Amino acid sequence: MEYESLIIDALLEAGAKPVSGEELAGRLGISRTAVWKHIRALQREGYHIEVLRGRGYALKGLSSRPLEREVRRGLSTRRFGKRVIYYERVGSTNDVARELARQGAEEGTVVIAGEQTRGRGRLDRSWESPEGGVFLSLIVRPHIPPAAISRLSLLAGLAAAKAAESFSGVPIGLKWPNDLMVDDRKVGGVLCEMEGEAERVDFAIVGIGIDANCDVSVDIPTTSLKKEAGAAVDITGLIREVLRVFENLYEGFLRGAADFLEDYKERSQTLGKDVKILQPKREIAGKAVDIDGEGALVLRLRDGSYERVLSGDCIHLR
Amino acid sequence: MEYESLIIDALLEAGAKPVSGEELAGRLGISRTAVWKHIRALQREGYHIEVLRGRGYALKGLSSRPLEREVRRGLSTRRFGKRVIYYERVGSTNDVARELARQGAEEGTVVIAGEQTRGRGRLDRSWESPEGGVFLSLIVRPHIPPAAISRLSLLAGLAAAKAAESFSGVPIGLKWPNDLMVDDRKVGGVLCEMEGEAERVDFAIVGIGIDANCDVSVDIPTTSLKKEAGAAVDITGLIREVLRVFENLYEGFLRGAADFLEDYKERSQTLGKDVKILQPKREIAGKAVDIDGEGALVLRLRDGSYERVLSGDCIHLR
Repeated sequence: MEYESLIIDALLEAGAKPVSGEELAGRLGISRTAVWKHIRALQREGYHIEVLRGRGYALKGLSSRPLEREVRRGLSTRRFGKRVIYYERVGSTNDVARELARQGAEEGTVVIAGEQTRGRGRLDRSWESPEGGVFLSLIVRPHIPPAAISRLSLLAGLAAAKAAESFSGVPIGLKWPNDLMVDDRKVGGVLCEMEGEAERVDFAIVGIGIDANCDVSVDIPTTSLKKEAGAAVDITGLIREVLRVFENLYEGFLRGAADFLEDYKERSQTLGKDVKILQPKREIAGKAVDIDGEGALVLRLRDGSYERVLSGDCIHLR
Repeated sequence: MEYESLIIDALLEAGAKPVSGEELAGRLGISRTAVWKHIRALQREGYHIEVLRGRGYALKGLSSRPLEREVRRGLSTRRFGKRVIYYERVGSTNDVARELARQGAEEGTVVIAGEQTRGRGRLDRSWESPEGGVFLSLIVRPHIPPAAISRLSLLAGLAAAKAAESFSGVPIGLKWPNDLMVDDRKVGGVLCEMEGEAERVDFAIVGIGIDANCDVSVDIPTTSLKKEAGAAVDITGLIREVLRVFENLYEGFLRGAADFLEDYKERSQTLGKDVKILQPKREIAGKAVDIDGEGALVLRLRDGSYERVLSGDCIHLR
């Protein structure tokens, strides 16, 4: 694995010019046959490497997969991405991250998948996760009480929306609590899970899914950044941007700054609308007038009274 | 196991009178040798069964251990204790209950240990757990957001205090958040843990420890019910009482009733006192003036301002 990273570095350094197998073998202290084997492995990982008879290897294109070495290349974050674990295909990145966190994995660990076979969304729903999407889970270990987790979950939605918007140019809104929307079409979401005791969270898993280059048809209107922007999105770059924006917001959150909430509210599609909240045992209809310091949606009901809602499906009526 | 319960039932029915091996064998449809083996197993479980030559077996005393069949005998609860898992000795009942809950164990499942080898208290502390104590963990699956867990944790402390007081006659107070106290001596505590997503708890584990008949010396003043009451406490009966009181309060909690909080406040040793709250990175001193709807301790600081505290160690100053 390390040899492969060194080979990519050497090829990148040479630009599009070929580097001979002999030179690579010499620099790495391995045989030319070993170099060849690593080149083959890199090709299988999606790197476009040309083999030029008698002249060596030329890098024509990096892998488009969000491999650890690609995500980490040029990553400017301090915490998030120090450790990146990439799966071409996995059940659920949240499940993997949770298991790692239980075993003590550090804050900042990132689990990424090219595809999920049992992707999960909020409230036990499944989450379509075909190739072409962003599926990542971050391990965080904030010193906060469980009550603060709703806020963290809104913050994660905001970070994903800001990153997707600045990276793709597509304007992204937020439907409470944290659906990423392009107008009324869903383009991503957040699943924030946690373990801890009554007084403080032990760890939380922030799962972020963005329909970058895939377009799934489910029972609600969805879209992809590719469809909206008219061009495929560099998934690896988008992930780096998500990590960067999340880290900035998260560090403010740890310092107790609440200004992300204003930022969130500006992006909210829900505020000002008549909405219906569906909970397992009841429905609440009202006008969404605020999101409070705890992340609750504040509704003004028909009779003029107010109700705070912390959970449920939100339907925009008009 | 079932045969052993049937044997105990038969012996109990006979009062102190002996029941012959032949009769037991006939009633159970097994051999007299098999009856004898079950009697031996019961004796090893702590039952006092006399073997009367030629006349059979007489029950002189039940096991003092909180075995499943003893806890369930005469238990009047609906949810809690439908399934009881007893260990003579285990690492931590909370850990066992958590693993069971992850595997889908139902609400109401109870894990009990005679002794814990890695007992845990709040905030990652260890919890001395020698024989003679009550160590039990309840699995609950309330449909609540994580923010409500602090309240559940106070409710558990209240339930344990009420049960221990009514069962032993020793007056029990509560030090915020949920230490069980006899004057200034600690006699029990609660560790409430949970897993879930930002909007709702998947399950919580309510761990309750009461120094019934043991007396451990640690760096804070402690006591036991036995010491205070002057007589050993029937651990099995105490556990049944904890389950009964907890279930009552918990059902009110699920209906949204908040009256347990008034009950809690009446028992609070902390309210009205000058206290110091120790958190990992700061200390807060003030007068404890209230416990709010979220379970936070409300302090009036020196400058007259108020601060809500959700976590930390509470020290009573006077």
